[in-house]
Amino acid sequence: MRVEYINPFVVAVLSVFRTMLGTELKRGKPFVKGGFQPRHHISGVIGLSGKARGTIVLSLDRDAALCATEAMTQERPSEIDADVIDAVGELANMIAGSAKAKLERFDLSVSLPSVITGKGHCIEFPSNTTPICIPFECEWGAVDVEVGLVEVAAPCPVAVPV
Amino acid sequence: MRVEYINPFVVAVLSVFRTMLGTELKRGKPFVKGGFQPRHHISGVIGLSGKARGTIVLSLDRDAALCATEAMTQERPSEIDADVIDAVGELANMIAGSAKAKLERFDLSVSLPSVITGKGHCIEFPSNTTPICIPFECEWGAVDVEVGLVEVAAPCPVAVPV
Repeated sequence: MRVEYINPFVVAVLSVFRTMLGTELKRGKPFVKGGFQPRHHISGVIGLSGKARGTIVLSLDRDAALCATEAMTQERPSEIDADVIDAVGELANMIAGSAKAKLERFDLSVSLPSVITGKGHCIEFPSNTTPICIPFECEWGAVDVEVGLVEVAAPCPVAVPV
Repeated sequence: MRVEYINPFVVAVLSVFRTMLGTELKRGKPFVKGGFQPRHHISGVIGLSGKARGTIVLSLDRDAALCATEAMTQERPSEIDADVIDAVGELANMIAGSAKAKLERFDLSVSLPSVITGKGHCIEFPSNTTPICIPFECEWGAVDVEVGLVEVAAPCPVAVPV
């Protein structure tokens, strides 16, 4: 992944957390994650496709996910439930939508989000992708955003068995 | 998700496992999964977007994932490693590519795959999506494919904070 593509995602994350949750994130230093390292309790995953193919993973500590849900719904969930899934999926969706608008050249569209739970879960990318992990801290705890984005020469780079 | 959209994904899964892995899958009865039920050890997740937004989740038991990797690489991995991640990501990629070709009306493109590990992981969808889970059995164990696909009225249905 080219480094100049990171900034639109950083701006998108800061903007979404400020606008939707009323909280300011503090950004840490981006890094390339080693394999099989679980990061947080809950992760929203969403795909981007068009003239580039990408995936965004938004991972949050349990407390950060519960507080973010409370900020969006005005009700504090007591555990990771369907409301938390919806909140994390919607945050991933909004980050993808905001970053896509800043990467017009790739004519990106956004897939459906899915949300992964389970404390020990790891999210890996195939070895031909080098995603960048951007760590953030907020008043509620740790938040990571991992982004993989690969330019494609043709609209469909997929081998299609028929 | 509309039931008539399931068949292209079933055909894609059967075709990819037959062509790429040389194994025949036996299909079970599709169902709507209840929340927070971990299914298998490893899952490939890939997004689809265009005139519909979707996500495909391919989940496999540990043994099925190791055997599938052996069929693709001619080497048997002893554990879930980077080769297994690549194999499961590529299978998800090929299933998405094959299904996309059968759903031309949606002009779909395919995101980057990501691969989830961790025995207790659950993959959930937001509450406004009703994904369908299609269980399969093969000589190596259980394989599930879960598909959520939602038609969209406009190319970008995402609320974009700026």
